[in-house]
Amino acid sequence: MSHIYAGINNIRVCLFYIILFQYTVIMKKLYLFLITITLLTSAPKTSIIFMIGDGMGPAYTTAYRYYKDDNTTHKITPTVFDTILKGMNSTYSHNSVITDSAAAATALASANKTDNGIIGLKDNHKEKIQTLLEVAKKYGYMTGLAATSTITHATPAAFIAKGGHPRNKEAEIAKDFFIKTPDGKLKFDLIMGGGEKYFAEAFADFNQTANEYGITLYRNGYMLEDIKQFPFMAFTSYDYPPFAIDEKKENKYRVAKMTERSLNLLEGKPFFLMVEGSQIDWCGHINDVACAMAEMDDFAQAVTHAKTYVDKHPNTLLLVTADHSTGGLAIGDMVSKNESKIEQAKTYTWYPEVIKKIKASSYVIAKALRESKDINMTFQTYTSITLEQDEYLQVKEAITNKEKVRVVVTDIINSRSHTGWSTLGHTAVDVQTFAYGEGSQKFKGFMDNTDIAKKLFEVLSNK
Amino acid sequence: MSHIYAGINNIRVCLFYIILFQYTVIMKKLYLFLITITLLTSAPKTSIIFMIGDGMGPAYTTAYRYYKDDNTTHKITPTVFDTILKGMNSTYSHNSVITDSAAAATALASANKTDNGIIGLKDNHKEKIQTLLEVAKKYGYMTGLAATSTITHATPAAFIAKGGHPRNKEAEIAKDFFIKTPDGKLKFDLIMGGGEKYFAEAFADFNQTANEYGITLYRNGYMLEDIKQFPFMAFTSYDYPPFAIDEKKENKYRVAKMTERSLNLLEGKPFFLMVEGSQIDWCGHINDVACAMAEMDDFAQAVTHAKTYVDKHPNTLLLVTADHSTGGLAIGDMVSKNESKIEQAKTYTWYPEVIKKIKASSYVIAKALRESKDINMTFQTYTSITLEQDEYLQVKEAITNKEKVRVVVTDIINSRSHTGWSTLGHTAVDVQTFAYGEGSQKFKGFMDNTDIAKKLFEVLSNK
Repeated sequence: MSHIYAGINNIRVCLFYIILFQYTVIMKKLYLFLITITLLTSAPKTSIIFMIGDGMGPAYTTAYRYYKDDNTTHKITPTVFDTILKGMNSTYSHNSVITDSAAAATALASANKTDNGIIGLKDNHKEKIQTLLEVAKKYGYMTGLAATSTITHATPAAFIAKGGHPRNKEAEIAKDFFIKTPDGKLKFDLIMGGGEKYFAEAFADFNQTANEYGITLYRNGYMLEDIKQFPFMAFTSYDYPPFAIDEKKENKYRVAKMTERSLNLLEGKPFFLMVEGSQIDWCGHINDVACAMAEMDDFAQAVTHAKTYVDKHPNTLLLVTADHSTGGLAIGDMVSKNESKIEQAKTYTWYPEVIKKIKASSYVIAKALRESKDINMTFQTYTSITLEQDEYLQVKEAITNKEKVRVVVTDIINSRSHTGWSTLGHTAVDVQTFAYGEGSQKFKGFMDNTDIAKKLFEVLSNK
Repeated sequence: MSHIYAGINNIRVCLFYIILFQYTVIMKKLYLFLITITLLTSAPKTSIIFMIGDGMGPAYTTAYRYYKDDNTTHKITPTVFDTILKGMNSTYSHNSVITDSAAAATALASANKTDNGIIGLKDNHKEKIQTLLEVAKKYGYMTGLAATSTITHATPAAFIAKGGHPRNKEAEIAKDFFIKTPDGKLKFDLIMGGGEKYFAEAFADFNQTANEYGITLYRNGYMLEDIKQFPFMAFTSYDYPPFAIDEKKENKYRVAKMTERSLNLLEGKPFFLMVEGSQIDWCGHINDVACAMAEMDDFAQAVTHAKTYVDKHPNTLLLVTADHSTGGLAIGDMVSKNESKIEQAKTYTWYPEVIKKIKASSYVIAKALRESKDINMTFQTYTSITLEQDEYLQVKEAITNKEKVRVVVTDIINSRSHTGWSTLGHTAVDVQTFAYGEGSQKFKGFMDNTDIAKKLFEVLSNK
C-alpha cells in the first residue's frame, strides 16, 4: 500500500504546485481584468482650466514678481506663476513671426496656425477649425468661456466662432455663439464677460433669442453669486469693461472673481473652462506699466484660485500661458544712455515702488489733467509723483497743443520707474507654459503654441 | 522499498525547492552586493559643461530661431536651445532687481547673491566665496574656463578670482588665477580666451611665472590643435577679442571651436568646464542686432558640440543659461506708433533677412562710412541696404557733426528689420535654464540663479 500512498503523496505534491501555479495565473488574470475594467469603464474625465494672459510675455511675470515683493528683505518671494512653470512656447502665426491675438487664439483653441486677423479658419482661409470647446462638448464636458474683454473679442471668440469673420466684427461673432452642435446642443454652458452690446446688435430681440435657446441672462457685473442655472451668459458690462486699475475697489479682482465663481458652479462635473486675463495686453499696447501690473495682480489671483481648485480636485489640469507678449516691456530703460560705465552699473535699478503708488490708468490721469486747474496737484494725487519743472512743462505743453497727454503721463511714469518699452504692438518673444495637476507633465520644455492645443485635445480624449 | 523511494522522492522535491529558494536569496544578495559595490567604489564622477550666454535673455534665443530658420516654409525649425529647455531662473542681485555680470556670475559660480560690481565676495563684502571650479578641483576633477572675452572678465573671473577686486581691475584678477588650493595645486587645468595683456601687466615676467607654475602657454588664436598638455593657458588674443561678425571667416565660430577642442582634450576624464559666449551681451549693449545674432550662432554651435559630447558620454551634465538679458531686445519695434489698428496688424512683422545680410558690426560699418567717399555704396556693401534719402542724410549729418555714426547705423538696421531695444544696459527679465544629460532633470521649472549653482554643487559631490 505504501507505494500507493507514496504515489498519492506525489500526486498531492504535484497537485499542490499545479494549484499554486494556476492560482497565481488566475490572480494575475483577475488583476489584469480589474485594471482593464477600471481603465475602460470608470476612467474619469480630466477637467481643464485653460487660462490665457493676453500679452503676458516673460517680462510681465518677472516684473510682477518684483512689483509684488514686499521689498523689506533681500529675499524675493516667488509668485504663483513661479510655482507651476513647465516650459515655453513659440507664438508665430502662419504669415508672420509676430502674431496677433486672433491667430494666436486660433492656434491655442484649435492647434491650427492661421494668418493674423483670422478667427475660426485654417491657414487656407476656407476650412473651418474644430476647437477644444467643441470637442469637449462632444465628449460630454460642461464648457465655459470667461474674459475681461468683451466675450466676442479675439481670444474667447476663437474658441467658439466659426464664420471666418474679421476679428473686429464682434456682432457677427456674437451670432456664432448660437450655432448648435451637430446633435442640437448649445456649445457653451457658461459665459462670463463684457459686451452684451454686440449680442443686442446681432439679434432683433436678444432677450427673446436667449429665452428660445434656454439661456439665462445675468447682468449684475461681478456680483456673480446670483447665478444659479446652466446654461447662462453673465455680462459684466454692456460695452468694453474698464481696466482693473480703474475699477471700483470691490471689482479690481474681476478675473479672480469670475474664475472662483465659475469653478464653484462647475465643481464636481467634468468641464472645459477657458479664462482670459484680457487686458494685460491692452495696458501693454499703451505702454502703461501700472495698468499692466494691476491686471497681472488680478490674473495671478485668478491662477491661485484655479491652483487651489486643482489641489482639491486632483482630476483637473490647469494650463496657463500667454498668446504673445505686448509692447516689448523691459525691466530697465534708457537712463544710462549718456552715463559712463561705472554710473551705468549704479543705475541698474527698477523702481516698482513708483508703480505701486499709481492709482489710475494713463487715460484716467490724462483726462483729470486736462480738466484740472492745478497740474502738479492732480499728478501728485493720482501718482504720488511730484513733477520736476521739465516734466510739468511737458504735461502743460501737451494740454495746450491738444497732444496726447496720456503719452506724456506714461513717459513720466516709465522714466521714473525705469521701465522700458519698444513698441505699441506685439513682439515675438516666446511665452511661458505653466501647468499644474493631472497631465501637467505633458507641457514640459519647449513647444509650439499649437502643441499646447494638441496636448489638450489628447487630455480631452483621455489619451 | 517503494516508501523509501517515495520518501527520498519527497526529500528530493523538498530539497529542490529549498535549493531554489536559497539560490534566489543568494542571487538577490549577490545582486545587492554588486549594486552596493558599484555605487560605493566606482560611482563615476559626473562631468559638468556649464555654458553661459552672457546677456542671452529669452528674446535672444527666440530671435535666433527665426533668424536661423531657412524661411522657405511656414514651418519653423527648432534650435538646439529648444531641444533642451528645462525652465527659467531669476537673476536679481543682492542690491538690485537688475543684476550686472559680476554679481550674476558670482551667483552662478558660487550660489551667493552679492552686490552689482562685486566678484568673489559674499553680500557682506568681506567673506570670500567658494566656487564650483574650486570644489570641482577639491574632488579631483579637471577644471577649465573658456570665454570669448578676456579670461579675466567678470564671468570667467567669478569662478576663480577671490580678492574682492572691482571687476574692471583685470590685472589684479589675473593674479588670482595663480592662487593655489590648500593642498598646493593650481586651480585650473585649462584656460582659453582673450587678454594675455592683463597677465603681462600682473607679472614682471609672465613667461617665467607660467613656467614656474608648470603652465604651458599657447598663443595661436583659435588654432587650438597644437595644445597637448595640461595645465595650459591658450590666449586667443592679446587684448579684447573682436566680435564674431568682424572675425576672419575661419574664426567666426570661436566659442564652438574652443568648446570642441576643450571637450576633445578633457575627454574621458571627470571635468568641470565653464564656457562663456561673452559677446552676446556686448552686442546687446550697443543695440546691434546683426552682431548679437552672429554671437548667438557661434554660441548655438558650441552648445551643439557639447550636446553631442553628452550623447557620447552619458555621464556628463550640460547646463546652459544666461547671466541676465541685455538691451531689452524686442522682436518688434515702434513702426506702428502712428498707424491705425488695422495697419498695425499688417506691420506685425520682423525681418531677419535684413539682419542676415549685414556683414560687420556697427563699429566697423561706422568706421568705413567715416572713411568713405560714397556713403550709399559703402552702406550697401556692408549691409545690402539701399539708403533712403532721409537715412542718407542722417548718416551724412552724423559724420559732418562728428556724432555717433555707429548709433545711426544701428538705428537704420533696427528700423529696417523692425528690431526694438529699450536700454543700453541690462534688464531683469528671467532667463532660461537649459540642461541635458546626467542630472538634467534637477533643473526643471522656475528657480533662482543661485539654485543653479547649488544644484551643480550637489552634482559635483555626487548627491
